[in-house]
Amino acid sequence: MADDNPIRFGIIGCAEIARKVSRAIHKAPNSTLYAVASRSIEKAKQFAVKNGLSETVKIYGSYDELLDDPCVDAVYMPLPTSLHRHWGVLAAQKKKHLLLEKPTALDLDELDMILEACESNGVQFMDGSMWYHHPRTAKMKELLSDSQLFGQPKSIHSSSTYAPGPEFLEKDVRVKPELDALAQNSAGVILSCTACLNWDKEETVATFHCSFLSHETMDVAISGSNGSLHLEDFIIPYQESSASFDFTSGAKFVDLHIGWNVKPEKVQVASELPQEAMMVQEFARLVKGIRDSGCNPDSKWAKISRMTQLVLDAVKKSINIGFKPVCL
Amino acid sequence: MADDNPIRFGIIGCAEIARKVSRAIHKAPNSTLYAVASRSIEKAKQFAVKNGLSETVKIYGSYDELLDDPCVDAVYMPLPTSLHRHWGVLAAQKKKHLLLEKPTALDLDELDMILEACESNGVQFMDGSMWYHHPRTAKMKELLSDSQLFGQPKSIHSSSTYAPGPEFLEKDVRVKPELDALAQNSAGVILSCTACLNWDKEETVATFHCSFLSHETMDVAISGSNGSLHLEDFIIPYQESSASFDFTSGAKFVDLHIGWNVKPEKVQVASELPQEAMMVQEFARLVKGIRDSGCNPDSKWAKISRMTQLVLDAVKKSINIGFKPVCL
Repeated sequence: MADDNPIRFGIIGCAEIARKVSRAIHKAPNSTLYAVASRSIEKAKQFAVKNGLSETVKIYGSYDELLDDPCVDAVYMPLPTSLHRHWGVLAAQKKKHLLLEKPTALDLDELDMILEACESNGVQFMDGSMWYHHPRTAKMKELLSDSQLFGQPKSIHSSSTYAPGPEFLEKDVRVKPELDALAQNSAGVILSCTACLNWDKEETVATFHCSFLSHETMDVAISGSNGSLHLEDFIIPYQESSASFDFTSGAKFVDLHIGWNVKPEKVQVASELPQEAMMVQEFARLVKGIRDSGCNPDSKWAKISRMTQLVLDAVKKSINIGFKPVCL
Repeated sequence: MADDNPIRFGIIGCAEIARKVSRAIHKAPNSTLYAVASRSIEKAKQFAVKNGLSETVKIYGSYDELLDDPCVDAVYMPLPTSLHRHWGVLAAQKKKHLLLEKPTALDLDELDMILEACESNGVQFMDGSMWYHHPRTAKMKELLSDSQLFGQPKSIHSSSTYAPGPEFLEKDVRVKPELDALAQNSAGVILSCTACLNWDKEETVATFHCSFLSHETMDVAISGSNGSLHLEDFIIPYQESSASFDFTSGAKFVDLHIGWNVKPEKVQVASELPQEAMMVQEFARLVKGIRDSGCNPDSKWAKISRMTQLVLDAVKKSINIGFKPVCL
């Protein structure tokens, strides 16, 4: 159902992921792609052609021009992370709502500058984490919140790995310290990282593993006092139209411990829109509330981004002090 | 196919797990249960009745009597861990081959005493880890060794958790420091533990999580440079007759990163015998080689147990020094 007054998005930066999000803006019923900006007008034009954008989409050869266009309601910003502070703050000052690609900032200080600019200018902030917005995630949350079927959370393990190959490891923005990666002394950048998180009073533990050196994995394994949940495609589902996870509750070993009383149940969740379109739709819904109905920005998404950054900073600190624990 | 000269097992200690292994000895074609010993003859008799043992099985009211019986070829020892050093060494000195329940010892010094006693007395040693012996494990190893399909190992995560409940946490042998558990200062025993292992030069990382406080999980997730492997029942398969794991190789995200080119393939492996019977069969095969053909004991299993104990000791040390890294 078309919206007769959709949120008009401008995209700042023509990164590869902007292709996916421009498609998502097209699919989200309350959004429209209004403008695209690159540092060169040629690159922006190529992006428009490559992605079959409508000829009505404005093409800008500088980020400033896009931010100065009063018709742009919101900005999607897939710039290298080191540029987020400058352009994120400026976008907020120009009263553009900000959908900021992850990682959001180089550290918490930088992120806080961006979040404060958004807050003081009354614009909505959200980072570009797509999987939160899949209906599968809502279904997972429902089961994980069930005190009978799942109980208290005890352990969480997740992974996000892929092996883009040697050329990427030399050249991609994500492995250039001055652009995107967390530099780790003279040895260069962190290409693989495993971390362990403890919650002192709750007997809960989490581990995560991220790597540019390993085959594609996107695992989540969560166990609680009464149940457990597993999936292997949590960031990018295997398919767009539906996704699943395994849920097990009340598992016991049978007599003599020669088997289990139950096997995991596959929970399948259909999705009318791709998760990134649902992300855009949710962001645009909040922006419309502000633009058209006088609502305040929703601080929920800033809080989530801030917690993520707090953990990342602590992991980096732990690495820098010789893998010792860091308290938050 | 019945063996007309099977290995004659004596079981020392009537722990719950001895029920499972006495069944396994019955099922293994080259083994027979010859004797059972408990600290009281009544307890041993009850065990024989409860498990429907043949009336020909000898019942002993002390461990010494069983070890002094010259007809006993091999001993299966599911005693509390703190008793392993004493009885394990004594069994070896009495020239009994030793199938020792895990955990094998309280620390490496104790395990080394047991292993040295086995070596100097020419008896076979094996610990009671059953899952090594499932044909699924061999199939996993085959795929994990494939330099094309799997490549170099990069990360391993495993879990072993279950929630036996408050009564167990008060009374079971596994949570009594003087019997079985690793005591951790005045706070009591370790009921939940997460550890991270790094191999410096190989960019490989492993994490494991063990807990008495969480729902049943037995996860293994392994990723390499070209493939990944997942299963959720690695210690005790869901069913006896066959077991499976998921294997993925060459996974890539499709254009725009809106899905994957492949999904995990379920690899199903049938098993004629339960894995614990295959463990007994393999142990008895080695013992027969020594007893009947003048072969030497196979040191492979001692080496595996020793590596496990090395890691456990390092984890305990890391906990004791405030969760700092320990080098091996």
